[in-house]
Amino acid sequence: MDPIYYAVIAGVLALFAAAAFAAYVLRQDEGTEQMREISAAIKEGAMAFLRREYQILAIFVLVLAIGLGFIPSLGWWVTLAFVFGAVSSAIAGFIGMNIAIRANSRTAAAAAKSLNQGLRVSFRSGAVMGISVVGIGILGLSILYFAFNGHVDFLTIIPGFGFGASLVAIFARVGGGIYTKAADTGADLVGKVEQGIPEDDPRNAAVIADFVGDNVGDVAGMGADLFESYVDSIIATITLAMVAVGAGLVQTAQTAWQIPMMVATGGIIASLIGVFLVKVGDKPEMKALLNALRRGTFGASILTAAFAALTVYFLDASWGILWAILTGLIAGVLIGESTNYFTSYSFGPTRRVSEASQTGAGTNITKGFAVGLMSTIPPLVIIAIAILVAYNFGNMYGIAIAGIGMLSTLGVTLATDAYGPVADNAGGIVEMSDLPEEVRDRTDALDSLGNTTAATGKGFAIGAAGLTALALMISYAFAVGIVTIVEEPFSLDISNVSLLDPAVIAGIFLGVLMPALFCALTLDAVGRASFAIINEVRRQFREIPGIMTGEGKPEYGKCVDISTKAALKEMIAPGLLTVVIPIIVGFVLGPVALAGFLVGAVASGFMMAVMMSNSGGAWDNAKKWIETGQYGGKGSDAHKAAVVGDTVGDPFKDTSGPSLNIMIKLMSIVALVLAPVLKDVDGIF
Amino acid sequence: MDPIYYAVIAGVLALFAAAAFAAYVLRQDEGTEQMREISAAIKEGAMAFLRREYQILAIFVLVLAIGLGFIPSLGWWVTLAFVFGAVSSAIAGFIGMNIAIRANSRTAAAAAKSLNQGLRVSFRSGAVMGISVVGIGILGLSILYFAFNGHVDFLTIIPGFGFGASLVAIFARVGGGIYTKAADTGADLVGKVEQGIPEDDPRNAAVIADFVGDNVGDVAGMGADLFESYVDSIIATITLAMVAVGAGLVQTAQTAWQIPMMVATGGIIASLIGVFLVKVGDKPEMKALLNALRRGTFGASILTAAFAALTVYFLDASWGILWAILTGLIAGVLIGESTNYFTSYSFGPTRRVSEASQTGAGTNITKGFAVGLMSTIPPLVIIAIAILVAYNFGNMYGIAIAGIGMLSTLGVTLATDAYGPVADNAGGIVEMSDLPEEVRDRTDALDSLGNTTAATGKGFAIGAAGLTALALMISYAFAVGIVTIVEEPFSLDISNVSLLDPAVIAGIFLGVLMPALFCALTLDAVGRASFAIINEVRRQFREIPGIMTGEGKPEYGKCVDISTKAALKEMIAPGLLTVVIPIIVGFVLGPVALAGFLVGAVASGFMMAVMMSNSGGAWDNAKKWIETGQYGGKGSDAHKAAVVGDTVGDPFKDTSGPSLNIMIKLMSIVALVLAPVLKDVDGIF
Repeated sequence: MDPIYYAVIAGVLALFAAAAFAAYVLRQDEGTEQMREISAAIKEGAMAFLRREYQILAIFVLVLAIGLGFIPSLGWWVTLAFVFGAVSSAIAGFIGMNIAIRANSRTAAAAAKSLNQGLRVSFRSGAVMGISVVGIGILGLSILYFAFNGHVDFLTIIPGFGFGASLVAIFARVGGGIYTKAADTGADLVGKVEQGIPEDDPRNAAVIADFVGDNVGDVAGMGADLFESYVDSIIATITLAMVAVGAGLVQTAQTAWQIPMMVATGGIIASLIGVFLVKVGDKPEMKALLNALRRGTFGASILTAAFAALTVYFLDASWGILWAILTGLIAGVLIGESTNYFTSYSFGPTRRVSEASQTGAGTNITKGFAVGLMSTIPPLVIIAIAILVAYNFGNMYGIAIAGIGMLSTLGVTLATDAYGPVADNAGGIVEMSDLPEEVRDRTDALDSLGNTTAATGKGFAIGAAGLTALALMISYAFAVGIVTIVEEPFSLDISNVSLLDPAVIAGIFLGVLMPALFCALTLDAVGRASFAIINEVRRQFREIPGIMTGEGKPEYGKCVDISTKAALKEMIAPGLLTVVIPIIVGFVLGPVALAGFLVGAVASGFMMAVMMSNSGGAWDNAKKWIETGQYGGKGSDAHKAAVVGDTVGDPFKDTSGPSLNIMIKLMSIVALVLAPVLKDVDGIF
Repeated sequence: MDPIYYAVIAGVLALFAAAAFAAYVLRQDEGTEQMREISAAIKEGAMAFLRREYQILAIFVLVLAIGLGFIPSLGWWVTLAFVFGAVSSAIAGFIGMNIAIRANSRTAAAAAKSLNQGLRVSFRSGAVMGISVVGIGILGLSILYFAFNGHVDFLTIIPGFGFGASLVAIFARVGGGIYTKAADTGADLVGKVEQGIPEDDPRNAAVIADFVGDNVGDVAGMGADLFESYVDSIIATITLAMVAVGAGLVQTAQTAWQIPMMVATGGIIASLIGVFLVKVGDKPEMKALLNALRRGTFGASILTAAFAALTVYFLDASWGILWAILTGLIAGVLIGESTNYFTSYSFGPTRRVSEASQTGAGTNITKGFAVGLMSTIPPLVIIAIAILVAYNFGNMYGIAIAGIGMLSTLGVTLATDAYGPVADNAGGIVEMSDLPEEVRDRTDALDSLGNTTAATGKGFAIGAAGLTALALMISYAFAVGIVTIVEEPFSLDISNVSLLDPAVIAGIFLGVLMPALFCALTLDAVGRASFAIINEVRRQFREIPGIMTGEGKPEYGKCVDISTKAALKEMIAPGLLTVVIPIIVGFVLGPVALAGFLVGAVASGFMMAVMMSNSGGAWDNAKKWIETGQYGGKGSDAHKAAVVGDTVGDPFKDTSGPSLNIMIKLMSIVALVLAPVLKDVDGIF
């Protein structure tokens, strides 16, 4: 039997499990009438956004699909794979968000009973997302495998699936990211800073938009992001199969295709078990909660390693492949821990940002930025070492499969990640529903835990994106023919793409520019969108009588509407440029320059993604550290300074930073998909 | 006659001219007793800093000099060149600063007469610096040329001179940069933000330290920086002579050595003429002033192009070399203009930063950062194109000589740049000396003009650094043997250093990390140093009775002392790491990985340098735009927000950003100097 049937079984199992978790969540009490109302408003806003976003996306997908079909060296099978990938990604995002917007009030109601119950409901809803993403991913790839593995163009067709997933991901991540941060900073700047009312206060007109943003950005956007990483890492490995054969790591290309699928399959089973490992006793201590989540992720990692060993053994492959997988797995964990170190207020770096807040917003900003820059050291060094080690064990194929190792436990890590926004929303609903203070304390505890896991998860998402993008770039180099396999004895001829070729150097300079351009666009987009929100919230405070005393009711819908329109408008340019610029570079400067461009973009994008995510995280938690009573606590000058840092950090960590992950993968996969066309292009230089 | 004698003549002429300008400046009236006193305090602080800085530097130079001498493949001639380069750079910085600290009160006194007179004195003092730097540079290189051009190891010895210059430059730039910005932000945060007193107010204890900082950072530091760029660009071109011969651009290596020297010689003559072109009529309008400066720089550019044409003609070289030189010249001008566009409040980007200040410090910061990121587009695209064009015309030699084209007018561009801090100091002296308001208005006009020219100058310094570092990296690749010349027919064998070699990829990732690490260190250093200043100024306001009413006198010396100690301590780590890390990469991962490391560092360092300089400039001028009365003018909430941006931008634009220029060149020249040793190293992978 073809082992890929196991993948299908695992995928179906995953979807059943997700359905069971969803059923569990939906069975829970929705809370009071007031809570239902708020939840309904969030649901309405989020679904409206997603619907309109998908409508716009449909146009892009359609245009590109037709375009791909008419290119002679690609053809309609590529189109089919592309559309299939896009639809799969959209479904994954939709499922995740659909349950998240139903879980928020239920988590709030559960937290009213106990912390433990709150964790259970929110985590299960996160698990729906995590498990669905990997389930849909593996099923989609299995279907393609069975449909095309005998096809002569298999390796041209399958990247289409990744391209579709990436295209949806970039718009979802950027659109959602702009939405969430525009609403968040808009709400904060007028509410917290100008009016001095607390976060999530019902008097703030942008508060519902802020909640909607958590769902469309941190849930739907992130789901699409990691779906993309997941399938792209598998695709990149599959396309490098001939290297594995040549290097003697496996007997046949078939085996080299099956290994990544089977490692992922093992990861799904491990993740399912990991999800069940997340249990706490009756004493709901913070430490116990964190340990429960860690037990889930670490347990899954160890199981995945074991499954990978079985895969290598039964498919009769070289043990070097296992070491490459483990290299990725370990690198992912280390990068996650390093992110946590730099962004948690339990450690020095973030605490020093709090300390710097004493001398004002200026020093807070500078220090947070410096922390972000400094935090790039471990991830970049770890990735550099991982590249060398994985290559040593498994050649180029090793680098690609290391990416899978990193992502194999995605089912459970994404669950720990996706539960955060649900807890965040739940806290907001509690705040707006006059529930007792202790319930809010519980949701705050859940939220804070979510921040820790989100930090680790974010680091690991970046690491995975870096390795995956690199692997895709290498696949591109083979597909376009600038790297070739020399047989007897096996070696790779990499001499046609020299670092010192001026086209490559120029390409690297242009590639390094891309993340900067992309961040500038996304930061500006958030700035413009939040400017609109700020003016609307200010207007409502000014014009609606009795809004501050609670007698007048703000028009939440207006802010939701402004955020939606702004986010949808602003997501177009960054998304489009990411697709178009590599094509231009490839056709104008040639395929060799494009290789330099991609390496420059991946390296600098990786660095900037870490920097932006971590400085944002450090600013956020530096503020929270002050709120625990340090340096004068809430309302002190240090706190005000820290709020400025948090406002700056919001788009850094939730819009620009994470979108860079997708950008580097999308550009690489565009190159890979177009490789058959670029093959015959000569640059103008 | 060897044409290098012309270079000697030009160098001597330059030094005579510098002496004449210095004599002119020193002849001027020093102003009132009070002004002399302040100037004396600045002088004392600046000289004390420079003395102690040079003492520390002497130790590093000594240790490295001995180290180089004992390495068998390098030897004592390299040591000699290294020490010679270090001493020359130190002298250039010393001369520039020595005249600047004498010109400040004289400029203030001259501005009391007329704006025109103020411009003349300050600009002549800037010219002393500009002309001395190029004069000493060309003389130093000429001496080395005559001493060693027949020596078999000429191309090993001459990079030693550049290494010495770079080593002094990194410490001078970083130390001076930390000093100036620690004092500046310290003075601003307590004085302007907390106490609400104006800039340069005598009641502020850090005010003298701030003035000293302008001299040690913006004058001495910048002088060392550009001295380094200047000599390094010539050295890089000389070391690529064999490529020029092989490619048939010149007949002999001798000619290929002479061309860069002669182009620089022409540039010196052109700069001298350019300095004399800076004249205004009696109507001292702002526009006329700017036009006067532009006449100087553009005039010099055109003359340089003409001299370059003569050089190519008389040395019987290929016209391709001229086109490569012009490529660099034009690219430099364009990059300078782009910097001006993004950082001047006459244009949209900076104005939008002002606009964003209306919604607070957070949006001001985000917008300024976005502007900085966006501003990287033109320079990176221009450099990428320049690399391709220059290569097309003059192969690798063309890339190197394009760098010279960019720097050839340094004498006059540096003059327009170095006059800024003098005008800035003069303004401060006016503020502290109870001179009439109109005098301060005049020095403000000079200062503002200085900011514009400084912006252009900064862009051009970065562009020159990028090309020079790249050229040095290419020289390294030849010297270490990973690129070789194939004869009959001529071509370069660049196949041994593949972009897809995992060691190269890992090197690129590590290289991209370097600028981030370096910025983190320098930002933190400024943060720590300014924290110390802030506490001292706060203490003085608290403890010295009558300080606010003017009855008590602050202890300026204390702040000067704190800044000095902090800057000297903090400059060590970034300086040392810049030298040590490339050595580690070279020995651990091998010379091929080091090539990748350098390319990654140069590309990402260039991007970050532009981003940091321009976002800093945009924040600074956004504040100034508000101060002209926009959005509520001085004292408004928008202004307060803009002051925060300015505080953040200060170390961005005057410490981290410019130091990156040196970092990328220094790392490349370390690699080049050590190439004979690295030749035999195999990486551990």
